[in-house]
Amino acid sequence: MFTYIIQPRFGESDCLGHINNTVLAHWFEAARTPLLRFFSPELKIEKESFNLILAHTEYDFVDELSFQYEVEIRTWISKIGTKSFTVYHEAWQESPDRPLSLCAKGKAVVVHYSYIKKQSTPLPEDKKTLLAQHLITETCLQL
Amino acid sequence: MFTYIIQPRFGESDCLGHINNTVLAHWFEAARTPLLRFFSPELKIEKESFNLILAHTEYDFVDELSFQYEVEIRTWISKIGTKSFTVYHEAWQESPDRPLSLCAKGKAVVVHYSYIKKQSTPLPEDKKTLLAQHLITETCLQL
Amino acid sequence: MFTYIIQPRFGESDCLGHINNTVLAHWFEAARTPLLRFFSPELKIEKESFNLILAHTEYDFVDELSFQYEVEIRTWISKIGTKSFTVYHEAWQESPDRPLSLCAKGKAVVVHYSYIKKQSTPLPEDKKTLLAQHLITETCLQL
Amino acid sequence: MFTYIIQPRFGESDCLGHINNTVLAHWFEAARTPLLRFFSPELKIEKESFNLILAHTEYDFVDELSFQYEVEIRTWISKIGTKSFTVYHEAWQESPDRPLSLCAKGKAVVVHYSYIKKQSTPLPEDKKTLLAQHLITETCLQL
Repeated sequence: MFTYIIQPRFGESDCLGHINNTVLAHWFEAARTPLLRFFSPELKIEKESFNLILAHTEYDFVDELSFQYEVEIRTWISKIGTKSFTVYHEAWQESPDRPLSLCAKGKAVVVHYSYIKKQSTPLPEDKKTLLAQHLITETCLQL
Repeated sequence: MFTYIIQPRFGESDCLGHINNTVLAHWFEAARTPLLRFFSPELKIEKESFNLILAHTEYDFVDELSFQYEVEIRTWISKIGTKSFTVYHEAWQESPDRPLSLCAKGKAVVVHYSYIKKQSTPLPEDKKTLLAQHLITETCLQL
Repeated sequence: MFTYIIQPRFGESDCLGHINNTVLAHWFEAARTPLLRFFSPELKIEKESFNLILAHTEYDFVDELSFQYEVEIRTWISKIGTKSFTVYHEAWQESPDRPLSLCAKGKAVVVHYSYIKKQSTPLPEDKKTLLAQHLITETCLQL
Repeated sequence: MFTYIIQPRFGESDCLGHINNTVLAHWFEAARTPLLRFFSPELKIEKESFNLILAHTEYDFVDELSFQYEVEIRTWISKIGTKSFTVYHEAWQESPDRPLSLCAKGKAVVVHYSYIKKQSTPLPEDKKTLLAQHLITETCLQL
């Protein structure tokens, strides 16, 4: 599991007083940065050398997220396929009025891809091994 | 169907040279503005009177979106339930190198909700009627 | 003068109920897109061929901007130098409670620059001529 | 001085391969969060009780910022007036190719303000004292 702690930015709230739904896309992307390093340790994201493309994301908005308190993003790998893998994220927040609660969760399907050939390519075995160390298990899930 | 035309902003590209995945969350939210008007004609989004909450969004990244060319967002209602409805979006882009192409699609599940009672509430019949005028049909889909 | 009309996005409001200050940076950048076309008609923004870099921006927040109503961004050139030019922006909004009002204004200093040589370069005469057609005059300003 | 460390998000880069100019507005806003706590320790940002409004921001883009490396935002108070104060920010980044370098700097003028009366109000003495502890001095500046 990767853990990423965020102090929300004031501008990430919206006029209903909560964190806007679009912000989760930004936070979960940020939480995937350690996974990018598996494929490019220096984070050199260039078409010539980088091999990942995002095919799908989804988000479930479970409970209100406030600007006021830190948010903990927990990230696991939920599936490793032949040419792609799935990342699973949870956003947790605690406040004086509420115990630590799951407020949002989501998935991202990431495809191993050649930007030069413009086609998906098999996920190398060494990368599968790295990803497998972060596979989610029944006991990981608290809800 | 609602149509919303966007000239992408330079900062919406990322270092791979395409529109970043997070941007679709912003564009599709913007494309739902006419639907918000069904529930609040003045767009007065306040907890006391506003009755919609977002429960789920998802995004499929089908093809590259470039900063250079306009994007057309097409929006339909794909499902009307008792207490919620589902919005379906498509993002289309044409360029000198590519005919008008579906580049991304997505869904948003919107729940009729009381921010005061903190619970979902039935979708009023008059709102269902408004939404039904934008229901997607087989012939709407071009892919 | 360039005119750019925006329907604000819900997520561009913040928990005080107004458009967040950061959003003006995005809107004014979008409003400069026609100026980018003077230097790259196809908006091909690549280090090898693109010749502009942003050196400075500033923003004055004059009055509240609401999510509810369209915003008109007016853009002029306020200065043409040897190696740079200055863009001046205004954001205007009208509502039932307020006549069309100047709500924000700002500047961007754009330098003619070679990303290859990593140094500023003289602004070509033909570009100066194009920019000069949008120079602001005393009579442009309504405040 | 307040220090705020950021790992840039992939989507904060743009198609020139650098951090987009608009991102500094978001980072500097985030870096001001500890200052908001001087006025609202719980970060309860509501019109009834919150007393700050942003009047002006500016940004100087001094050197390239890369997505790859952490950024350190250093924040001071540069001026304390009767009804407002000025915040001064610097963004520093180090990479294998470049020693720790000042890449951007900026200011924000924050006005003590009543959202109810819609007018500026004097900065209370206790707040001035808190702010004064973070006043910048000649020796703070490294450039």
